[in-house]
Amino acid sequence: MISKNRIRFINALSQKKQRIETNRFIIEGEKMVQEAVQWIPDLIENIYATSDFVISSQHSMILPEEITVKELKEISTLTTPNKALAICKIPENKSVDSSLIICLDGIQDPGNMGTILRLADWFGIKDVVCSKNTVDCYNPKVLQATMGAIFRVHVHYVDLNDFLSNTELPIYGALLEGENLFTKHYERKGIIVLGNEGNGISEDIKKHIQNAITIPRFGEAESLNVATAGAIILGAFYR
Amino acid sequence: MISKNRIRFINALSQKKQRIETNRFIIEGEKMVQEAVQWIPDLIENIYATSDFVISSQHSMILPEEITVKELKEISTLTTPNKALAICKIPENKSVDSSLIICLDGIQDPGNMGTILRLADWFGIKDVVCSKNTVDCYNPKVLQATMGAIFRVHVHYVDLNDFLSNTELPIYGALLEGENLFTKHYERKGIIVLGNEGNGISEDIKKHIQNAITIPRFGEAESLNVATAGAIILGAFYR
Repeated sequence: MISKNRIRFINALSQKKQRIETNRFIIEGEKMVQEAVQWIPDLIENIYATSDFVISSQHSMILPEEITVKELKEISTLTTPNKALAICKIPENKSVDSSLIICLDGIQDPGNMGTILRLADWFGIKDVVCSKNTVDCYNPKVLQATMGAIFRVHVHYVDLNDFLSNTELPIYGALLEGENLFTKHYERKGIIVLGNEGNGISEDIKKHIQNAITIPRFGEAESLNVATAGAIILGAFYR
Repeated sequence: MISKNRIRFINALSQKKQRIETNRFIIEGEKMVQEAVQWIPDLIENIYATSDFVISSQHSMILPEEITVKELKEISTLTTPNKALAICKIPENKSVDSSLIICLDGIQDPGNMGTILRLADWFGIKDVVCSKNTVDCYNPKVLQATMGAIFRVHVHYVDLNDFLSNTELPIYGALLEGENLFTKHYERKGIIVLGNEGNGISEDIKKHIQNAITIPRFGEAESLNVATAGAIILGAFYR
């Protein structure tokens, strides 16, 4: 049984303003909640789950509160709610200390954001540094698209101009008239800047880019989706 | 002025069944309609546009019918309708004659499908061959995600098992235990199979794969989004 007040509290967490005020976010779905239990057990405050939710016994300290399918529907943002929902604390800011970093300059689409975090996680990139106008990484749609990467990749929201002014790492960015991505060998060291879906990298960020790179085009498309462009670039860094 | 009957007809085209029955699909938004006018003028039947829609004069044979913003809202599937909507005929089936082909085995997400078509277009891949259970490429969300690639890439829906049985091209597929993608050189010749978002490549398609390839993983993510995986693989084929 879950109280009306609690339902209101959880529903409000789909809004960024409420997440910031309460310092909480929600994780949804059996797989995602299982991953949260595995990777961020200390940040989990509550788990609400239907009776068929299975939780790994080695983390049995966090006991789910059993709710009905109907109650789960009331608190879920998913079209098809899936067994469990957890309320988690937003982790404290960590310092950025990797030698290969992805920078996001104004990414707006939650799916793109989540896909990029998943991509970073695949290649073992620990830090993704975002401009303040990049979509919130605790947005429910971003979280779903990360497929759990959010528990392992640290996402930082900063003044990107300041951040890039104060780094000693080489700064790469995909621009139209850069060096052919495929003809160079890359050290796994530096900052890779990916720009907004419609406008690319903004003017005040462009000036920091010392190494403009271009993905060679063989067809007619005007541009690539930002997550696929990022994937091709990371492929070149990790080959 | 657009009749009630016409509005009903256009609204119905957001459903696959109606698109097949009428052999029509809709293109939405200023940029997409402009691209349709440029790339598939012979397939356009009607253009409905608000007064601020600009059409390239060299294709002035297709005159838009002027409608109000309110009318555009009634026929559009977009949250924010954008100046124009065109009704187009579905192109006739072409034969598959490229030497580098992408095969999609049960891709379900419209965003992924559109992003993959855009990626194919970037690399100049002319043919994308899909299993019959792959999402329809004339689904409005797929079309938006293609950013115009749909006008240049030919999408074929076939019995994939048959198709792969009858090709002489080498068949590549991303599987968990394949050869390291980054240690090999690829001819730009063959068929690259990408599998369903949740289940990967299906069992009866797997048996056709002669060249299993694996994108090396350096982090903890269990898998990659299918469009980003495709992007990394194409990056290796075109480097």
